[in-house]
Amino acid sequence: MRLAELSRRSGVPTATIKYYLREGLVPPGRRVTATQSEYDDAHLERLRLVRALVQVGRVPIASARDVLAALEDDSLDHNARLGTAVGALPHGPEPAEDDASDAQAHRTVNALLAQLGWEHTQRRTEESPAHRMLVTAVATLTRLGYPCAVEDLAPYARAGSQLAESDLDLIERYESPDRQLEAAVALTVLYEPVLLSLRRIAQAEESHRRFGAQDAGE
Amino acid sequence: MRLAELSRRSGVPTATIKYYLREGLVPPGRRVTATQSEYDDAHLERLRLVRALVQVGRVPIASARDVLAALEDDSLDHNARLGTAVGALPHGPEPAEDDASDAQAHRTVNALLAQLGWEHTQRRTEESPAHRMLVTAVATLTRLGYPCAVEDLAPYARAGSQLAESDLDLIERYESPDRQLEAAVALTVLYEPVLLSLRRIAQAEESHRRFGAQDAGE
Repeated sequence: MRLAELSRRSGVPTATIKYYLREGLVPPGRRVTATQSEYDDAHLERLRLVRALVQVGRVPIASARDVLAALEDDSLDHNARLGTAVGALPHGPEPAEDDASDAQAHRTVNALLAQLGWEHTQRRTEESPAHRMLVTAVATLTRLGYPCAVEDLAPYARAGSQLAESDLDLIERYESPDRQLEAAVALTVLYEPVLLSLRRIAQAEESHRRFGAQDAGE
Repeated sequence: MRLAELSRRSGVPTATIKYYLREGLVPPGRRVTATQSEYDDAHLERLRLVRALVQVGRVPIASARDVLAALEDDSLDHNARLGTAVGALPHGPEPAEDDASDAQAHRTVNALLAQLGWEHTQRRTEESPAHRMLVTAVATLTRLGYPCAVEDLAPYARAGSQLAESDLDLIERYESPDRQLEAAVALTVLYEPVLLSLRRIAQAEESHRRFGAQDAGE
């Protein structure tokens, strides 16, 4: 298909597609004349993933490029590609320079990982972005004096574990390894607001159950 | 205590405290001379909450003001204040104008809430921000063609339910109702990166378990 049809079928304006092509987020089409290229279903799929990352997940262009590069890295096997791609997703704010609460947070997170038996993460010589995001969040809780001991964090880790199983079940519905990788990245990002909003709605339900017959916020 | 001591004990620069005072995020101190005011522990507590919302949670000043106003609204009972304050926390992107996927998302979310028996949420005449955030996220998944049927969402709702219990357990450790409300708002925001990072770490663990002996991202 030509650019105009790619735009129509993907719902992405041609100017935006050209921008993604220039930035290397979408691979070039097959050149058919000096000014025209031909695109296929792989381009449609890629545009869908780029929209999920950039428009919905607000992933910066440079980070999206890293994620997409990992998906195409032939030197890695399936599992390594998945880890690298999801690992390249941007994480929260950078750690503050408060060494005391940062060191305390590292000890807490290490104790949590040991208790969970998450050996893969413990064996890594370098912290993944998600690991750093966790340490930063725990350091902030520590600094502000909110509860964040290992036993406070454990229920959130158990929830994370159950969710990871659901996540991988969704991903394994896709047959080809390439589609699985794309789905892993897209669903990681797109299910985050699902999870956070369901937690808030459940809090309102639970708070209603515990504290009152009168309806909250009505 | 004077402003300088409030700054020292809270770790917030005096210029920032003055800004929060002007914006109404922190109540004024007790005026002792024409140029000096006296602050107390309630101001320290409030600064801690404002830091959690504004600096860590990146909540816009105007939304933070709404959240804090709900905490102090004497016309509401404890449970209503909690619901209103957490409900005033900003939510994700506004819904796009795609009516078809939005209507489909509403049907899916309503079916999910009915299946869960979350009556409090179903009985509300107006959607809360969290409810809108969920509909928007499901509409996006629908529009991009990713799985988001009721049975796909159910595991995330179950996780949200379990987390709400842990959240409320943490909050009930605080004795005074005012401190409980502050903790509810702060912990809702501060535990979001904890949850999202633990989900990503658990994904790496689960992916390692399912797909490979070789380590991801190494």
